[in-house]
Amino acid sequence: MPSAEFAMIYRYFSDLGRGDAVDLSVGDDCAIMRLGEGERLATSIDTMVVGVHFPSDSFPEDIAFRAVSAAVSDLAAMGARPLGMTLALTLPEVDELWLNAFSQGLAAAVGAYQLPLVGGDTTRGPLSISVQVMGALPMTLALLRSGARVGDQVYVSGTLGDAAGALAFLKGQWQPTPDYAEYLLNRFNRPRARLELGWALLGRATAAIDISDGLLADAAHVASASGVKICIEPQLLPLSAALCSHDCRETVLQWALGGGDDYELCFCLPVDESPPVGSTRIGQVQAGVGVDSGLDMDISHGYQHFDD
Amino acid sequence: MPSAEFAMIYRYFSDLGRGDAVDLSVGDDCAIMRLGEGERLATSIDTMVVGVHFPSDSFPEDIAFRAVSAAVSDLAAMGARPLGMTLALTLPEVDELWLNAFSQGLAAAVGAYQLPLVGGDTTRGPLSISVQVMGALPMTLALLRSGARVGDQVYVSGTLGDAAGALAFLKGQWQPTPDYAEYLLNRFNRPRARLELGWALLGRATAAIDISDGLLADAAHVASASGVKICIEPQLLPLSAALCSHDCRETVLQWALGGGDDYELCFCLPVDESPPVGSTRIGQVQAGVGVDSGLDMDISHGYQHFDD
Repeated sequence: MPSAEFAMIYRYFSDLGRGDAVDLSVGDDCAIMRLGEGERLATSIDTMVVGVHFPSDSFPEDIAFRAVSAAVSDLAAMGARPLGMTLALTLPEVDELWLNAFSQGLAAAVGAYQLPLVGGDTTRGPLSISVQVMGALPMTLALLRSGARVGDQVYVSGTLGDAAGALAFLKGQWQPTPDYAEYLLNRFNRPRARLELGWALLGRATAAIDISDGLLADAAHVASASGVKICIEPQLLPLSAALCSHDCRETVLQWALGGGDDYELCFCLPVDESPPVGSTRIGQVQAGVGVDSGLDMDISHGYQHFDD
Repeated sequence: MPSAEFAMIYRYFSDLGRGDAVDLSVGDDCAIMRLGEGERLATSIDTMVVGVHFPSDSFPEDIAFRAVSAAVSDLAAMGARPLGMTLALTLPEVDELWLNAFSQGLAAAVGAYQLPLVGGDTTRGPLSISVQVMGALPMTLALLRSGARVGDQVYVSGTLGDAAGALAFLKGQWQPTPDYAEYLLNRFNRPRARLELGWALLGRATAAIDISDGLLADAAHVASASGVKICIEPQLLPLSAALCSHDCRETVLQWALGGGDDYELCFCLPVDESPPVGSTRIGQVQAGVGVDSGLDMDISHGYQHFDD
């Protein structure tokens, strides 16, 4: 991208790079950050593509906030403390109105997660956003997928299936009341990654994962990595009133079990650990393999995105 | 992307994640890496889009190697030691032949730079590759753009303009001899980031930058960040025999001064510092602003990419 455009774009983002751990932000070949003594680096990258991960008429503010939240959710799932992020933004054209709105969503996310934007790259092409997050973990602690043990209880944060319900609404497949529609769209467009919960679970949970591909698909990752079977009791799933207003109970369960993009955490606690506030027990860890929800439901392909 | 495809793709990459600093690689919500005692994190992200940064008929091996080199070049320009990288890969479809070739290029880059691939995201969409590199720097040293002082000598590594010459060949604008064409294409497709040079310059160079946008554009960044004027003497520019075989001297100079994608380093040394082997003095730092090459040449828009 010609340097004049590049400079113009970075004007929108240059105020977002300050942070306690940041020695050098946007403006040199690399950003430089400091970890605390005895800390390790945790990092993850997530891409969102227009028409695949979000409708092409999404508000730029929401696209930005949601892209950052999706990446931050991976830090939450490890119990990491946010250090900073970089952004690879591919744009079909330079549209000042769009960029201004996008940068407002970015600024909201930077503030919400205390995660400065320390660098980035801007290229021309079909709209796509890659967010790389970096966080800090103690040298000997991390929430992994691999530590679940037989007898552990399985929990999730928040409510499940709201993003899938919002997608169905956006596709015209159902019509919730205006209040419920607004709630669901907010859950889809402005998901809030569970950083504080991740910190609270560090050293207590035996396994954790963020629910970005749907509960059953993600619980299956924990089961596989831990060498256990995860049994989910559908009647225990936490559901929002908005989702429950749908008249087909089976559809609601499909959304809650198979729908992605909720960015809640699923985690396992030893039976003598009391769960953090805001989490719900949904099952238990048993000997065996895979995930058992007691239902006959095809989730073999995991979460299907917007374009599927 | 459905999880079956995702798993298939990661089969190609899962062997590339081992490294001394890697505690946890591909397969959990985040990768985990360790920095050495008293080290800081240096990080940068670079995106390449098909038809913009590389011709759509490029070999997948070359696309992978070049995308990694472009990102690693930013670590080189800071003097950083490579720790690991993540990859955000957007693919229009899952093509096993393509992925196999791409992973071979990735493996070559992982080996060449000792930079394990610790994580990634794969999404469906127009072909695009974002590489985020992470490296380690001593707590008190870094090669910045901002330290050039009046009286310093200005150097570059390698030869300049080769990638621009290769692009002109690919566009059918000139026809070098087969040997020269092969040399130029190799410079374009397989650029080698100057990591060892960056380390050698740490603590010695007053400023450094990688030449990804063209010498004049990148030297202007150093001039601006350092508050000095950079004077370049065109007759000193290091040129390859392949480039010099073009019959128009002015075109060759335009490529050397304005062409991007060479991924060489431009750096400033105090007059009493002897330059590293393989670097060439091209000018000096004076009081003033901007870059002066003594030529009347329009480079106001910096380097123009493949699609321009």
